Amino acid sequence: MGRIVCAGLGPGDPDLMSVRSDRAIRSAGHVAYFRKKGRPGQARRIVEGMLAPHAVEYPMEYPVTTELPFDSPEYIHYLATFYDDWAQRLAELAQTQDVLVLCEGDPFFYGSFMHLYTRLQGRAQVDVIPGIPGMVGCWSATQTPITWGDDVMTVLMGTLPDAELRRHMQSADALVIMKTGRNLPRVRRALQATGRLEQAWLVERGTMPGQRVLPLAEVDGNDCPYFAIVLVHGQGRRPEVQE
Amino acid sequence: MGRIVCAGLGPGDPDLMSVRSDRAIRSAGHVAYFRKKGRPGQARRIVEGMLAPHAVEYPMEYPVTTELPFDSPEYIHYLATFYDDWAQRLAELAQTQDVLVLCEGDPFFYGSFMHLYTRLQGRAQVDVIPGIPGMVGCWSATQTPITWGDDVMTVLMGTLPDAELRRHMQSADALVIMKTGRNLPRVRRALQATGRLEQAWLVERGTMPGQRVLPLAEVDGNDCPYFAIVLVHGQGRRPEVQE
Repeated sequence: MGRIVCAGLGPGDPDLMSVRSDRAIRSAGHVAYFRKKGRPGQARRIVEGMLAPHAVEYPMEYPVTTELPFDSPEYIHYLATFYDDWAQRLAELAQTQDVLVLCEGDPFFYGSFMHLYTRLQGRAQVDVIPGIPGMVGCWSATQTPITWGDDVMTVLMGTLPDAELRRHMQSADALVIMKTGRNLPRVRRALQATGRLEQAWLVERGTMPGQRVLPLAEVDGNDCPYFAIVLVHGQGRRPEVQE
Repeated sequence: MGRIVCAGLGPGDPDLMSVRSDRAIRSAGHVAYFRKKGRPGQARRIVEGMLAPHAVEYPMEYPVTTELPFDSPEYIHYLATFYDDWAQRLAELAQTQDVLVLCEGDPFFYGSFMHLYTRLQGRAQVDVIPGIPGMVGCWSATQTPITWGDDVMTVLMGTLPDAELRRHMQSADALVIMKTGRNLPRVRRALQATGRLEQAWLVERGTMPGQRVLPLAEVDGNDCPYFAIVLVHGQGRRPEVQE
């Protein structure tokens, strides 16, 4: 069995990837990464200038992204076939070569690589190098602690139904809301309804060129890339002092 | 104004700190870190062998740790005075020297450094280098994705009241429970009551020598260091497909 290593790239600034990922990337002979068809791809962009001169690249291009509803049977079928095919190709390649797969953030935290990881079990040795999750880069960009003391922090996807968004927004101290994009107007309404809009921040391209950190209340709802993250900082929940 | 840099050290394996933290640590002339009195300290242990030969070290020794209840007025007073004093010393030092402060995990995620960070505002330039949070190292140690798809993830402290533990355990897909230690029996009961004990893992010293990953149901409740983390992995919540 060959060996496949997935290197977590961290939040975007190449200086924020781990020493181990940095070393793995600079020495890799075969490098695979996901991207949207016709785009350079965020993962590939992060490692620009780091790959060895003769590294062979394998762009894994998503067959669909936003053309189909992501809960449609067609979308699910296309994606499953895509992951099946690439798992097969990487497993074959790994029989003769070490293969490095790039993954933004931390691979085990909402990462696309997991769809290959599960398919590769028993077919190749797969090691994962953790990375700083994108949300950590985003709260660092706000220069404010996200959690203190006994704060409860909840990570939510903007794709959840309104009632669930509101329920979690009410019960956690600190909030991280990912997959905002076209859901941003709904996320904003849910924050408003739960009295948390005034403390919310929108962070785009955290730690990357063009980073933007704005109070969400001041942002035009239609002006938000898919990977922007909404944050509400915890205020430091403390145990009640018994008087 | 001088400059203070807080370097996030990541989960424990020195190879998992960021390239930027690695560089800052190796070149630092003045290095401060928290530790329990009479102990080497976890932060200092992580950077063993990395400090420059003539680096001056400033161990910041907690005046109390577990001798007093952490919600007692005495405890709060001792800690506040301790942070006040060190903020003052670091601010003075920073007028003539760059100072590096070490912080395990990510400094803005439940980090002790935040108590200095807030006190240093306006008295020194303070920059924070993010790190891989300890919980990320722990879920990497389980070799299983912590979240998929639209999973909701909640981070809880074991110090919370039973009813709150249970409420959050019921409503999130993936769980991270920190500050377990003497609260482990309560955490375990809350997981049992919410039907989640069978999927829970205990991770001790994630990514470090002596790492231990065990199903929580098999662990003796009294056998758990303070920094062990309990994890319940998400199962990949997906939007309902409309038939």
